[in-house]
Amino acid sequence: MATATNPSFSILLLGAGRSATALIGYLADLHQQHGWPVTVADASEDLAIHKTVQYPGIKAAALDVNNAEAAQALIKDHQLVISLLPPPMHPMVAGWCLQHQKHLITASYLSEAMSAFDQAAKDAGVLFLNECGLDPGIDHLSAMKVIDELKAEGATITRFASYCGGLIAPESDNNPWNYKITWNPMNVVLAGQGGITKFLDQGQLKYMPYAKLFGQATAVSVKGLGLFDAYPNRDSVGYVRTYGLEGIQTFIRGTLRRQGYCTAWQALVTLGYTDNTYTWPLTETTTWAEVTASFVPKAGLGTDLRQTTAQYLGLPADDIVLDKLAWLGLFEDTPVRLLADTPAKLLLARIEAKWVLAPYDKDLVVMQHQFDYTKADGSRHTRHADLAFVGQTQEMTAMAMGVGYPIGIAAKLIGLGQLKQTGVQIPLSPDYYEPILAELMTLGITFDEYEV
Amino acid sequence: MATATNPSFSILLLGAGRSATALIGYLADLHQQHGWPVTVADASEDLAIHKTVQYPGIKAAALDVNNAEAAQALIKDHQLVISLLPPPMHPMVAGWCLQHQKHLITASYLSEAMSAFDQAAKDAGVLFLNECGLDPGIDHLSAMKVIDELKAEGATITRFASYCGGLIAPESDNNPWNYKITWNPMNVVLAGQGGITKFLDQGQLKYMPYAKLFGQATAVSVKGLGLFDAYPNRDSVGYVRTYGLEGIQTFIRGTLRRQGYCTAWQALVTLGYTDNTYTWPLTETTTWAEVTASFVPKAGLGTDLRQTTAQYLGLPADDIVLDKLAWLGLFEDTPVRLLADTPAKLLLARIEAKWVLAPYDKDLVVMQHQFDYTKADGSRHTRHADLAFVGQTQEMTAMAMGVGYPIGIAAKLIGLGQLKQTGVQIPLSPDYYEPILAELMTLGITFDEYEV
Repeated sequence: MATATNPSFSILLLGAGRSATALIGYLADLHQQHGWPVTVADASEDLAIHKTVQYPGIKAAALDVNNAEAAQALIKDHQLVISLLPPPMHPMVAGWCLQHQKHLITASYLSEAMSAFDQAAKDAGVLFLNECGLDPGIDHLSAMKVIDELKAEGATITRFASYCGGLIAPESDNNPWNYKITWNPMNVVLAGQGGITKFLDQGQLKYMPYAKLFGQATAVSVKGLGLFDAYPNRDSVGYVRTYGLEGIQTFIRGTLRRQGYCTAWQALVTLGYTDNTYTWPLTETTTWAEVTASFVPKAGLGTDLRQTTAQYLGLPADDIVLDKLAWLGLFEDTPVRLLADTPAKLLLARIEAKWVLAPYDKDLVVMQHQFDYTKADGSRHTRHADLAFVGQTQEMTAMAMGVGYPIGIAAKLIGLGQLKQTGVQIPLSPDYYEPILAELMTLGITFDEYEV
Repeated sequence: MATATNPSFSILLLGAGRSATALIGYLADLHQQHGWPVTVADASEDLAIHKTVQYPGIKAAALDVNNAEAAQALIKDHQLVISLLPPPMHPMVAGWCLQHQKHLITASYLSEAMSAFDQAAKDAGVLFLNECGLDPGIDHLSAMKVIDELKAEGATITRFASYCGGLIAPESDNNPWNYKITWNPMNVVLAGQGGITKFLDQGQLKYMPYAKLFGQATAVSVKGLGLFDAYPNRDSVGYVRTYGLEGIQTFIRGTLRRQGYCTAWQALVTLGYTDNTYTWPLTETTTWAEVTASFVPKAGLGTDLRQTTAQYLGLPADDIVLDKLAWLGLFEDTPVRLLADTPAKLLLARIEAKWVLAPYDKDLVVMQHQFDYTKADGSRHTRHADLAFVGQTQEMTAMAMGVGYPIGIAAKLIGLGQLKQTGVQIPLSPDYYEPILAELMTLGITFDEYEV
């Protein structure tokens, strides 16, 4: 172990799930290089041990964060807390960090509840850094770099579109949805339900209700990887000011899926399979076909479920959308054998069974920013910045690398005293994007910028 | 004034809005006939006075029900409380009624919070009667009468469908929606959003997500009045047991609108105009066309809004649905001039301005029950029970009569000691439907039962 660069610095990671794998490896490197103590705490001690056992010197801890005393005892002993807990828990953790004057990093969208800590965190001299993962995270870093460059050249950006997806590498892509689970699968089921979706399109404010969200996908082409579906992601309009692009005509952030996914997912939304608000009264003998039939008005005894479903959705019975639903087993006369739960949770069980990442599967992260800009001389141009990288193993996924490395690098910068901001922040300035993007390149996460 | 039949009885009505008009007249008659004191309390003293001034002896009171002390002071002085307050306030009122051992009547759907009072109300010897208005109310009374008759004849009911609508009388029907406001207009805007819609169809459980609810309307024909659209209303399945129809194959409760209304309302739902979850950022100059354009992906400068909206909805530009949206003014370049509010509240302002009941307009209540049944001899039959009646004035609407008279009659029955039930109830048994339906006939509210 090297001598500690900042002997008092230490890091507590809360949450050792899917997204933590790469980050734990990175924190183990920091421990090696700087001597900083690192503790990985999870509700499951087994999981914390499994994820840390290969890294000597990294401590694993069992922690139920609902046990405030135990959580604060751990927090008190560290200088930086990284929370990969579910987003609704972040403000509680932030409260403890404030009380004990600890820094905090999350990869989650900045909530109003978190923003409320800004002045108090500044007064305490600590940094609460949010949106510092992949998306949000790497997207901000890479977009702000280009935006600052174009502004420095005197250009005016008229259109910004930014797309990102956690997908499956072509060599592991062997199901009709071209999708597998590489992150919290409930987030996949509930995608788009977190609030109204809005963006700017040619100067016009646009809203997209959830019921239509997946039926309006646009095509995005990425060099070497082909075509993707993009659907708009949450409130893009709020980022116009965040990115310093007031007056821009088009501004949209979107999520990428493989071509055809969105139309098929729209069918699940239309049927009501993503509804998480009521309990479907399953019995021991209920079949998937019965659940699906409950969403199709004309489906009944003596009718062909696939056919009536197709008719209801306004599709031919041999449409590929129906193939995708069939592949999930939703027309099968096999018993569901789950406890009664919401349609969304039943669908979750289906996708967890069918979209499983196999041991040698590799995932793929794809990102593309598109900038239309007008130079000072009046000439018009378009620049793209593309990112694509694959994971290493079933556990060391591209998703985990994309989420974990920016957090790890930010943790290092804090430990080295190289981040001067305090308060509640998201990583937008050169202080963040210069060192983080530079180090991401050394880790194989490199943007390809080009004029089109 | 006659001698009081039950000298200690007295009635407090909370809420003097649209639905209270006929009830207040009925309570004034009770006051005349039985000497029972009646107080009408409303947040607006002006409204309470306006609605009672023509009835000597009826007291008007100003009451903010959020003032618990004032509310309880009034409740203490009466034997029966009738609540026409918004449904979420009923449990609070029920708590006070329990504390002071008063009876309670509402016209609202029985909530879980209200059901929780059952044992306590029984122990206190008071009746908390719910769903005793028009729909729910008269529908229960009239359906249970036929169900009990058919059961007494040894018949098995295989299908029950019950439809009700508060509409506009043919002579006052002069807009393309064939609809005007006769009750709480926000309930019109939010119709279908109160929870998942479900019903039984030929032995199959069916769910209908809100996003598709108005696009799946079925046609209902009522003698002498022509065709209506019916869309399913809330959770019908819960009423199977309530009505004692366990094992029935088809059971659906639905809401009636004039033919064509539902398809056009579906367009508003699809666009997102009924969304009450976020604030549309209106400015002083925002026009209705701009709001509508925000819901239509391809609408923009230099495009025809009606045309792009039609295209988005999958309709020809000259479709009558677009005529209906245009008639509401949603394509107009006129400023909205409202404070920023949810799309649902903006739509509310539109329909309040356009669907206004004019001074000499008369409204229409239509109800139809359909019973398919098998007699003991195996023969199959269908019986209908139809109800249609028009209002008297802009204030004495059919809707107010339909809601108010059953409540008033139930109040009388309580005052006369003719209702023996205590606890939390809905009006299902002959104790309710025999006297209430008989008296409704004398008030011009008469069902036409016939075999089809």
